Amino acid sequence: MSKLSLFSSFKKRNNYLSVEIGEDLTSLSQLLVDREKSVHCENLIGAISLPLGVAGPVIIPNKERKVKAYLPLATTEGALVASVNRGCKAINLSCQAEIFISKKGTTRGPVFKFRSISRAKKFVNWLEENEDILRKEAEKESHHLRYLGKKIKLVANYVFVRFSFDTGKAMGMNMVTIAMARMVRVIERKTKIKCLSLAGNFDVDKKPAWLNFIDGRGYSINASVTLSKEVVEKVLKTTPTKVYKVWLAKSLIGSAASGSIGFNGHFANIVAAFFAATGQDLAHTVEGSLGLTIADVLTNGNLYFAVHLPAIMLGVIGGGTNLISQRLGIKISGAGNSEDLARRLGMAVLAGELSLTASLAEGSLADSHQRLGR
Amino acid sequence: MSKLSLFSSFKKRNNYLSVEIGEDLTSLSQLLVDREKSVHCENLIGAISLPLGVAGPVIIPNKERKVKAYLPLATTEGALVASVNRGCKAINLSCQAEIFISKKGTTRGPVFKFRSISRAKKFVNWLEENEDILRKEAEKESHHLRYLGKKIKLVANYVFVRFSFDTGKAMGMNMVTIAMARMVRVIERKTKIKCLSLAGNFDVDKKPAWLNFIDGRGYSINASVTLSKEVVEKVLKTTPTKVYKVWLAKSLIGSAASGSIGFNGHFANIVAAFFAATGQDLAHTVEGSLGLTIADVLTNGNLYFAVHLPAIMLGVIGGGTNLISQRLGIKISGAGNSEDLARRLGMAVLAGELSLTASLAEGSLADSHQRLGR
Amino acid sequence: MSKLSLFSSFKKRNNYLSVEIGEDLTSLSQLLVDREKSVHCENLIGAISLPLGVAGPVIIPNKERKVKAYLPLATTEGALVASVNRGCKAINLSCQAEIFISKKGTTRGPVFKFRSISRAKKFVNWLEENEDILRKEAEKESHHLRYLGKKIKLVANYVFVRFSFDTGKAMGMNMVTIAMARMVRVIERKTKIKCLSLAGNFDVDKKPAWLNFIDGRGYSINASVTLSKEVVEKVLKTTPTKVYKVWLAKSLIGSAASGSIGFNGHFANIVAAFFAATGQDLAHTVEGSLGLTIADVLTNGNLYFAVHLPAIMLGVIGGGTNLISQRLGIKISGAGNSEDLARRLGMAVLAGELSLTASLAEGSLADSHQRLGR
Amino acid sequence: MSKLSLFSSFKKRNNYLSVEIGEDLTSLSQLLVDREKSVHCENLIGAISLPLGVAGPVIIPNKERKVKAYLPLATTEGALVASVNRGCKAINLSCQAEIFISKKGTTRGPVFKFRSISRAKKFVNWLEENEDILRKEAEKESHHLRYLGKKIKLVANYVFVRFSFDTGKAMGMNMVTIAMARMVRVIERKTKIKCLSLAGNFDVDKKPAWLNFIDGRGYSINASVTLSKEVVEKVLKTTPTKVYKVWLAKSLIGSAASGSIGFNGHFANIVAAFFAATGQDLAHTVEGSLGLTIADVLTNGNLYFAVHLPAIMLGVIGGGTNLISQRLGIKISGAGNSEDLARRLGMAVLAGELSLTASLAEGSLADSHQRLGR
Repeated sequence: MSKLSLFSSFKKRNNYLSVEIGEDLTSLSQLLVDREKSVHCENLIGAISLPLGVAGPVIIPNKERKVKAYLPLATTEGALVASVNRGCKAINLSCQAEIFISKKGTTRGPVFKFRSISRAKKFVNWLEENEDILRKEAEKESHHLRYLGKKIKLVANYVFVRFSFDTGKAMGMNMVTIAMARMVRVIERKTKIKCLSLAGNFDVDKKPAWLNFIDGRGYSINASVTLSKEVVEKVLKTTPTKVYKVWLAKSLIGSAASGSIGFNGHFANIVAAFFAATGQDLAHTVEGSLGLTIADVLTNGNLYFAVHLPAIMLGVIGGGTNLISQRLGIKISGAGNSEDLARRLGMAVLAGELSLTASLAEGSLADSHQRLGR
Repeated sequence: MSKLSLFSSFKKRNNYLSVEIGEDLTSLSQLLVDREKSVHCENLIGAISLPLGVAGPVIIPNKERKVKAYLPLATTEGALVASVNRGCKAINLSCQAEIFISKKGTTRGPVFKFRSISRAKKFVNWLEENEDILRKEAEKESHHLRYLGKKIKLVANYVFVRFSFDTGKAMGMNMVTIAMARMVRVIERKTKIKCLSLAGNFDVDKKPAWLNFIDGRGYSINASVTLSKEVVEKVLKTTPTKVYKVWLAKSLIGSAASGSIGFNGHFANIVAAFFAATGQDLAHTVEGSLGLTIADVLTNGNLYFAVHLPAIMLGVIGGGTNLISQRLGIKISGAGNSEDLARRLGMAVLAGELSLTASLAEGSLADSHQRLGR
Repeated sequence: MSKLSLFSSFKKRNNYLSVEIGEDLTSLSQLLVDREKSVHCENLIGAISLPLGVAGPVIIPNKERKVKAYLPLATTEGALVASVNRGCKAINLSCQAEIFISKKGTTRGPVFKFRSISRAKKFVNWLEENEDILRKEAEKESHHLRYLGKKIKLVANYVFVRFSFDTGKAMGMNMVTIAMARMVRVIERKTKIKCLSLAGNFDVDKKPAWLNFIDGRGYSINASVTLSKEVVEKVLKTTPTKVYKVWLAKSLIGSAASGSIGFNGHFANIVAAFFAATGQDLAHTVEGSLGLTIADVLTNGNLYFAVHLPAIMLGVIGGGTNLISQRLGIKISGAGNSEDLARRLGMAVLAGELSLTASLAEGSLADSHQRLGR
Repeated sequence: MSKLSLFSSFKKRNNYLSVEIGEDLTSLSQLLVDREKSVHCENLIGAISLPLGVAGPVIIPNKERKVKAYLPLATTEGALVASVNRGCKAINLSCQAEIFISKKGTTRGPVFKFRSISRAKKFVNWLEENEDILRKEAEKESHHLRYLGKKIKLVANYVFVRFSFDTGKAMGMNMVTIAMARMVRVIERKTKIKCLSLAGNFDVDKKPAWLNFIDGRGYSINASVTLSKEVVEKVLKTTPTKVYKVWLAKSLIGSAASGSIGFNGHFANIVAAFFAATGQDLAHTVEGSLGLTIADVLTNGNLYFAVHLPAIMLGVIGGGTNLISQRLGIKISGAGNSEDLARRLGMAVLAGELSLTASLAEGSLADSHQRLGR
């Protein structure tokens, strides 16, 4: 087995590996700007430099007042930042954008297996009746954590639970996993029933699943903009009707025809780049790819365009958000809390989705990829 | 609109943005190690430093000879590299691993809309009869590109096509999009039919979709390992039976209960980290989250453990793979071509999946997250 | 257009149609045993004779006492009744069966469209705050109807609602649709918002949908049986291990591989035959095809076998249950109310599923179809 | 266990059961009009009388010439026949209908399990190389059966196969199952590999599955009609725009929001009633519920309306089609072969879907259910 873990610092590991594979990896170690202790990555040897572009500023609609926000996007794919940027331009010219964030909670859920359905049902009853005990136990873990509720699925002798938590400014999967371990210990002690697995995929974490689409996970985002015909023509080089037709054919009917959980153009592109830029868990791009885009041509000929992202997992503290460059990424966005960050992501997705759909309507997708992608 | 795009270099943009948001972003510009011209990211202001850990080496089973490979994983989440590493250790002690890569091809697919079903059907016939013309046109785009085939879905007056291409050492979405534009121009010229959208979501790119799960996209990977009871106990701290039970409850039944397309523990975690480390498109983590894990307890008590990843999109040239640190990431993996790289990713997923399932079986998931994640 | 609707009785229509198509259809009119007025089928010309077989009796496990029940199955497919019957035999020899019925409620759900997300959200708030008014309005429709709750899905400017109702002994779709019309009228009057459609597919009626699988609809059924090795060998001609292996490969992994919402062998066969025999709406076979089968080999070598049917829509009054032969079908089952009937269907499905899986394990499926099916 | 199977005739069984349950069931035995020997239903005790209504005639668009066809619908649900009838009226006034039937084939598919992926792959190669042997073996079963092809899914050490067959005028599941048994015997003999299960759910029979939606099964139907504004207003009491809006909100967005495989209003209703009337396997209603409805408002204000049913399993010989009343059902439809019958079903679904969507648009759904349903 690797001796990598034997070394006491990432530089020593880097040296060792450089010799091992006969390739100078020193430059990677220079890319690590965080103190090793603050990095949660084992067998660390350095860092990857992921190019960071910035789109916007886009006007973020808000109850109290509108704010302008830059949108940090770390990506290696040409045309993405330009596309979001073009969408921002169109949105800013509209003044009729809206965005709403709804906290669904970070979920974690164990699975229990029983000798019989009746025992499983008895256990379900116990869970119902002892929710307060579980809530209290969970909330002991951290004062940042608030128990929100549970959903139970009884499948014969299996009991799947999906507990939801408000984790404040953190995305909170770690916090929630540890709280769940506490809760499970209480459950096991009180019921004498052994938990089969702390996570039973009814959570459902980092898998594309209808449950997350339907019920939501993390934050559910709805954002929209109404664009005048003129803006669509001038900025997006196409017409509301053409955008509408492409949306209908591609994002709705095409997605249905391919058995997709994502009824959109390319949510994942923007989610992945925004997550990378702001220190989120990149695997949550999976949940971020879920959702629907909506388009409409209004009676006055204007374009209504909206996105629904039901399961956005993010935070402004914890995990990768503590790293130096990722923290600057969040700073660039101007977000002070998770809802703020979700709002910026929502606008970025709205902008990127608008621009891509328009680009397909115009027939310029390949051109821009030819120009910016190689 | 932003003045960012007016500046001629990323440093100037960085300076401008620093002033704009009143935050010193200079450190981000120092993180960019590539020449600006070779970076495909608009409004570039620098780079993000993404911590790079290395798991392995793991023995890669291969027809001719076994090779040892290190597995680069760029991540901000504690416990991930350690988990893959532990899986590698178990796999190396087994000597009964297998991995098979099958090229399904990079897909792109336009949608056409017609006035009637009969016109749509006539068009489908035209496509069937003129496949050679389309093939030739596509292959003009690049000698790296080979046309593989097509799948057509007729939905009343809509025709959705899914063309597949072998794109050699590149993941190839860009190449394929541009080739598709050529093909569409030929189709439009010859049939006088206007393409509604170059991409109609029957491709289906970066959305979690059953079509990709069933038919495959990019590379389809099957990897397995047989572990003796002793190795499971010593390295993974649990038993084959316990691993099996968690797998069945979580990855199969729990995934079914939540309407998931991913019947696995956490494919997306490993795919995202490996993609970030080797310059792949992070949004393809979505396709990487698809797939099934298989477990079995053999009659001799040993553990059979396997993963099926039907839609892995990756390459060793083009896109982010050209960047300096990402290129070193690929170097660390030792992969010389896309199949090689897919093989390493497959082994990493096998290792990570094995370790997580074992950890849940052992009941140590929360512990390791408590230790390594904060 | 057809003159069929001009005639005042089904016999006259039958005569007219016989002449029209030059075929004597008199025998069909002789098959209609109900008074025309009590039949809810327009342009009635007679009836179809659907063969009725009876399986069982099977012992229905119940809290208070066990009852024996015959299972009426109307079908034209050979081997189905025999298969259920064989399953019943095995179940009766077990004495360790369980069945639980959970009322999820009959659902109906309108969709509303708004000019903006904020208006949509305001409307959602109105629904939350005025639930009592809606409840009362719904319950005015019938004293058999009880409002159970609602689930709301906000998709940008669209609001989808899923109202659930307890409809007593009736399946209740009709009752619920009419109650919904009342509720919608109240909503429209009070909010001045026009309902776009009384049914918006978030109900979701007669379509195979994850929402029904996950949340349940009508009745959710869980039934199980533990069979000794001897019974499996003697009655089912195979072994617990073989049944288990076929179940795992087919009902779990095979279903996953084909993108199925039904993780079972053939629920739909039994549901359709039972529904036809007892006057249920045959289109609800769709919801009946959803669900999971569970199998396990216990440490003592016995077979644990269970079924989970999340969305069974049925009743003992209303609709086709009022017809003479269908009423006898219900009589044969011995069911006095909907839960009773659901319990019998659950046992029938358990029996049929057990028998088919065993038959596949034994390798006798084709034989029995050859013998009984032609 | 039941003594039912001991009796030599359905009348004796009926008598026995009448005594057993203390209920006179004689009337059921009078409903059986077929000779017992020709009925494929074990433990037969009689028959159910299922009311038969007739919609139409509807003009069936055909290449050579248009024919008028009556549509037999056996149902116990009020408003269904009236709804289809109303749709037919609108279609007949249009003269711009189209229907296309594409034979996808009846599928059956075994699953094989191996000790390793490499053995599984070797087996896949064997299947590829020996397809001719399998084809010949299958076609020995019946000269009505023609082998069409196969699709293979390799999931680690599991091999799932989906064989497709043309079964002529029969729906053919029985024929295909028996042919499959022959093929499996050849496979087992030649490869020394034991088939795990003759049916592995990659077929996928009577489960709602994306594979059937995407690839099709049985017959794939596309049907459409263009209706003038006047016809929509006069016959359907609404406007093209209102129909369009309801379709978009309900059948597309609502279906997406509920995780449905059916993007339609109520395909299953019409499929179930048509299947019951013409002797089809009622459990195939599940496949019949799959599919998409398409609507469009043309530039001249007319309504384009279409349905796509990817997986219709039916036939005019075999199974229930041999029964006396069901044969008359087929006679009423005027269908001479399976394609003919599929064409009539397609038109019935088009008509019923059109009428329901219009009814929801008009706001009259509850009214008609109140009038016709109780």
